[in-house]
Amino acid sequence: MKAKVYVTLKKGVLDPQGKAIHHSAELMGFSQLADIRQGKYFEISFNNGIGESEAREAAESIGRDVLANPVIEDFMVEISA
Amino acid sequence: MKAKVYVTLKKGVLDPQGKAIHHSAELMGFSQLADIRQGKYFEISFNNGIGESEAREAAESIGRDVLANPVIEDFMVEISA
Repeated sequence: MKAKVYVTLKKGVLDPQGKAIHHSAELMGFSQLADIRQGKYFEISFNNGIGESEAREAAESIGRDVLANPVIEDFMVEISA
Repeated sequence: MKAKVYVTLKKGVLDPQGKAIHHSAELMGFSQLADIRQGKYFEISFNNGIGESEAREAAESIGRDVLANPVIEDFMVEISA
């Protein structure tokens, strides 16, 4: 069982790294870009024998407590086999 | 049109940050974890009027040239409306 956790900055939170990437991409000639925002991505592999709901619960708890800063970030969990 | 770009370390590349997260999560009592790997995640918003294939091409090109280090990282592009 695997969990993918996506951590993104909340709307309205400044993203200077995203702005820098946007600027670089524009300098490279990509003119159709409206915005680029940077986030984080985690792949959690669980031991065999753990159920889907248990994996989701563990991944959400790890996301909340370790991976995301809830003041400025949102996170989303996806479970796959 | 939006593109999501996922950048992950190639298999076999050491991921000390992932290891540190794994260790923290274990100390918090999550014992069912086999592995945690950290990656990066980018959301690219395109201006209106760009087609799906054009958006995919631009996102892949930006992924290859700006977002990922092809020596140690893989990337994946997903396009959504």
